[in-house]
Amino acid sequence: MQDADQITRTAHLMADAARRAILPWFRHADLAADNKRPADFDPVTQADRDAERAMRDVLARERPDDAILGEEYGATPGTSGLTWILDPIDGTRAFLCGAASWGVLIGLSDGRDVIYGLIDQPYVGERFEGGLGHARLTSAAGERALRVRGGTPLERATLLTTFPEIGTAAEATAFRRVADRARLTRYGLDCYAYGLLALGQVDLVIEAGLQSYDIAGPLAVVQAAGGIVTDWQGGSAAQGGQVIAAASEALHRAALDLLNG
Amino acid sequence: MQDADQITRTAHLMADAARRAILPWFRHADLAADNKRPADFDPVTQADRDAERAMRDVLARERPDDAILGEEYGATPGTSGLTWILDPIDGTRAFLCGAASWGVLIGLSDGRDVIYGLIDQPYVGERFEGGLGHARLTSAAGERALRVRGGTPLERATLLTTFPEIGTAAEATAFRRVADRARLTRYGLDCYAYGLLALGQVDLVIEAGLQSYDIAGPLAVVQAAGGIVTDWQGGSAAQGGQVIAAASEALHRAALDLLNG
Repeated sequence: MQDADQITRTAHLMADAARRAILPWFRHADLAADNKRPADFDPVTQADRDAERAMRDVLARERPDDAILGEEYGATPGTSGLTWILDPIDGTRAFLCGAASWGVLIGLSDGRDVIYGLIDQPYVGERFEGGLGHARLTSAAGERALRVRGGTPLERATLLTTFPEIGTAAEATAFRRVADRARLTRYGLDCYAYGLLALGQVDLVIEAGLQSYDIAGPLAVVQAAGGIVTDWQGGSAAQGGQVIAAASEALHRAALDLLNG
Repeated sequence: MQDADQITRTAHLMADAARRAILPWFRHADLAADNKRPADFDPVTQADRDAERAMRDVLARERPDDAILGEEYGATPGTSGLTWILDPIDGTRAFLCGAASWGVLIGLSDGRDVIYGLIDQPYVGERFEGGLGHARLTSAAGERALRVRGGTPLERATLLTTFPEIGTAAEATAFRRVADRARLTRYGLDCYAYGLLALGQVDLVIEAGLQSYDIAGPLAVVQAAGGIVTDWQGGSAAQGGQVIAAASEALHRAALDLLNG
């Protein structure tokens, strides 16, 4: 793609803008002050909306012909054939707890595939990026290549997810068939789980009930690092729903068999 | 205590030394390389041992008369009446996953109470500290006072723990009675949960199967921030076992009733 550099530059500008919009709200007293929130718990915060607006402002300036699909402000049509898929804060519950497993998710689709993605953790200062020739983590410590670790059999694998409930009762049961075979299962990771998989720290991420904007960015990051991301039937994960990300084909196959067993 | 300043200075030197010992191992390729580890999974790593030795070196130099109880190297007698309680890496499973909920725990007991404690997260660069006149979080962003948030009823509370299994089947059942009443339960937090409670971000932490070195540091941090830490019967939590930490007396009482219901 001839404008790959301009695209990645734009994505970083968007993530920078989202950081600036979100960080003042993270662990802010008004967010922590429970009694200022309505009784009906809705963890969509001002930070979510501020960040998506900030990212849309960057796109309006840098790439006005691209379409946008955002969690907070929906779909905006474009003419370039490219669509930016935005989740300003994935993991709002973690965000409200003050834990740093939430992230800003940016994906770019060419109408067929997600060709580029980014997971940004503003508080820790980490940015996982994959696609258009990149597979890297950038942080204050510098740049590190992203590469999944292969060769771990299921019996020695580490499996990550967010909630032990996973989704429906049937989805939880299917998940448990995999978890019971894995060596270690950890919860509460949100989108950060996909970054750790791309970094070669863990072997599997399994979730359900996702939206397309929850998975577009992570999907591109994990694929660029050599991993496999599909739905639980082995088809495209780009629309969300039930998602599995694996460090190797063998592990992906073994987990799919159990999910559908 | 007349040498409070020297004690806190020593604790910071210990945490600094532990950081230097641990960080080279965090997300290190040799730790990630699964096939270099023995088949029998034991997440006690070189980093644990290096960090405890580094902390003991500081104590030998700065406070040779104090006793030490460390996770890795056991008990060392002293003559001052003070005992340092050390867990070089609490949350080794998180550490091995590359997630940053692990921490260096330092507690100081006068033989009756834990009078000072520290939770250090070297990768994020956060240090939670409580006791001897302090209740603060220090990070690259500066210093912030630690203060629990009061006034949240159980029905609107956020509850944190590490594993959904909690401990024994009976302990898991008791935990679920509280979790079913709380608004939000999050997993995978390790010692970081106590820091978030002290920071006023969450309302309850409930765990079981702890060792004394798992809770000494967090106990002092939460108490200094105005929270309550006991075992599930309302007695001292200093020996570990079943632990509950709450942001208010009302919440503590409500959760204890359910744990013992």
